[in-house]
Amino acid sequence: MSAFSKAEYAARLARVKASMGEAGADVLVLADPASLNYLTGYDGWSFYVHQYVVVIGDREQPLWIGRGMDAPGARLTSWLDEDSLVAYPESHVDSETLHPAALVAGELLRRKLGSARIGVEMDSWYYTAQAHAELVAGLPSARFVNAHRLVGWARIVKSPAEIAMMRGAADIVSEAMKVGIDAVAPGVRECDAVAEIMAAQVHGTAGFWGDYPAALPSVPSGAKSAAPHLTWSGDRYEQDSVAYLELGGCHNRYHAALARTVYLGRPPDHLLKLAAVVEEGLETALEAARAGVTCEEVEAAWRAVITRAGYEKASRIGYSIGLNYPPDWGERTASLREGDRTVLRPDMCFHMILGMWEDDRGFELSETFRVTENGSPEVMTRFPRDLVIKA
Amino acid sequence: MSAFSKAEYAARLARVKASMGEAGADVLVLADPASLNYLTGYDGWSFYVHQYVVVIGDREQPLWIGRGMDAPGARLTSWLDEDSLVAYPESHVDSETLHPAALVAGELLRRKLGSARIGVEMDSWYYTAQAHAELVAGLPSARFVNAHRLVGWARIVKSPAEIAMMRGAADIVSEAMKVGIDAVAPGVRECDAVAEIMAAQVHGTAGFWGDYPAALPSVPSGAKSAAPHLTWSGDRYEQDSVAYLELGGCHNRYHAALARTVYLGRPPDHLLKLAAVVEEGLETALEAARAGVTCEEVEAAWRAVITRAGYEKASRIGYSIGLNYPPDWGERTASLREGDRTVLRPDMCFHMILGMWEDDRGFELSETFRVTENGSPEVMTRFPRDLVIKA
Repeated sequence: MSAFSKAEYAARLARVKASMGEAGADVLVLADPASLNYLTGYDGWSFYVHQYVVVIGDREQPLWIGRGMDAPGARLTSWLDEDSLVAYPESHVDSETLHPAALVAGELLRRKLGSARIGVEMDSWYYTAQAHAELVAGLPSARFVNAHRLVGWARIVKSPAEIAMMRGAADIVSEAMKVGIDAVAPGVRECDAVAEIMAAQVHGTAGFWGDYPAALPSVPSGAKSAAPHLTWSGDRYEQDSVAYLELGGCHNRYHAALARTVYLGRPPDHLLKLAAVVEEGLETALEAARAGVTCEEVEAAWRAVITRAGYEKASRIGYSIGLNYPPDWGERTASLREGDRTVLRPDMCFHMILGMWEDDRGFELSETFRVTENGSPEVMTRFPRDLVIKA
Repeated sequence: MSAFSKAEYAARLARVKASMGEAGADVLVLADPASLNYLTGYDGWSFYVHQYVVVIGDREQPLWIGRGMDAPGARLTSWLDEDSLVAYPESHVDSETLHPAALVAGELLRRKLGSARIGVEMDSWYYTAQAHAELVAGLPSARFVNAHRLVGWARIVKSPAEIAMMRGAADIVSEAMKVGIDAVAPGVRECDAVAEIMAAQVHGTAGFWGDYPAALPSVPSGAKSAAPHLTWSGDRYEQDSVAYLELGGCHNRYHAALARTVYLGRPPDHLLKLAAVVEEGLETALEAARAGVTCEEVEAAWRAVITRAGYEKASRIGYSIGLNYPPDWGERTASLREGDRTVLRPDMCFHMILGMWEDDRGFELSETFRVTENGSPEVMTRFPRDLVIKA
């Protein structure tokens, strides 16, 4: 039931093992659900308890170490054999005294890896301070290496099978945007618009079933649109206000994201001007996003356009996107921003998101694109780029 | 725009400060989004970057320390004054070298708290190993105390205002269950059933707008129902199979949860027997869940019923529920299981979830309840408890 072929998982693992060599790690103890999925196929909403995948340099298969209750899920979704699945007992769930990471340490000792160099994902949301402390205490002779982004960098160039999933995700989010634009109207409760959008995201399309996006629809209006990450409430959309929609689409944990802005009424001139500048900036930056160019060069192309028009933007204009779990569909590796010298390579995928938040309102425009071998990128999401006017 | 009165936040803070005294902490550095919300009202889907609330024993207001982009959201949703909001720059987002926790350390040094005893939530998903390492490195004279569950224990007894929200959440999930039972049918794609359920969860009711539950609908069928935490796919429900629905309802981040099992066809006798035993066990355990009783005594009441009938269950039968964020609506404090001697007090709320997973199928039955002053609990969720048969 794994989402990819065994050959694809083998290629991923070979790439990760090569990076381990460079990073000086004999063993990786991974806790990020995206790392677990990427290397083993394991997929479940079980990351509210501790779970790990352990990559050992000279062992063919990684070990999955998780809650006993979740071992059947590992059997169903991963490509691992039974002797690579290690289940821990219920006593170690939400306990004050018994921690699953201590069992991971025990498993490594048992396998004579107590003196190994161990790579850990120091800044992953699912690798807690306590998990690290338990591992360090349980392996006093080991050496620890920060391998936080090691699997993330291995993920950044997508395979044809991954790109097919992202195109499906892009279809889903392009459809969901239509539903959302229709649903947002004066007098409608925010929650009711979001409900329609979420249904569209999860129905998916005839060809691609909708998986849950790693972040929620963001559909704020009016003053709330100036605060980028507020979620919805029962407030109603008002006439003569701006709203934007930032949505994800997901298929088999692969994402595409898309943002558009709508004005409920006759838009003020300054908003029309902003919309035109941002659209020109988007086109210019997309045009610049070619293999061989750096992330910061893409951002510079955008910045030249908006600076000329008298605008500025402090935050990054995009990030690598693909496989992920809540709370983030971004891959936390390359960002389109000043100082990021990552060189674009074919089959990297980015969400270019141009968010312009001012004191009293926000504006967003985005696309998800794939870097191509030659020339301008493949824009996977499809929706007209103009400010949407619902008068 | 905070969800509760300023007096309610003041009472929460007083309770937390009293616990700090007992735990030997002068300062708390909190990273769990539920802790942030509970003490300040702050609410946003911004926990994919580092953010903190710092409680200082002798300062009236906590400090919110977050990404600059999210300060407008803190202004809109928290009760804090401007001088309690500390914004960090964009350079510290997903950076290889600059970590927001280092800025927290700097803020504490600036406030002459470099030698304080600092409580941290060691096992919170949002307090990473790296965040802790940065804080320890930045505060070499401080002493660190594990305060992982400190705010969680302060949350366990609910106020009347919180209970009103949970009753609203229970209304929502009871409605969503109806929608789900209607949607699950042979030939229907799992994703299409889940889409209808999610729409119902987020529409909410006329009185209570639907917030996003901290965990997804779980609606597996057939062999997949034996793996408790698999999410849906595009597979179709099959005739003559069992499916269960474990759903959350949420209002203003407060949850109720509800599970029921459905059989698509004429159920086998062994399933009917299991359903009857579990229902009796639920009634017996609910009857036992009175103020003054311990968590493990509630579980023992359940176990007596199922043991007599020849069944066993290794995992806990419930947990404290209320305010939370993904990935978990449980509060990670009290569990209804052997060895948990937490004494039930009035206005504690639990999700009692009886999941019976066997090799080839799962079965679930649950209710969300509130412990009352006298007598049996208030069951907030409402749906018939029998196995649902769709022949």
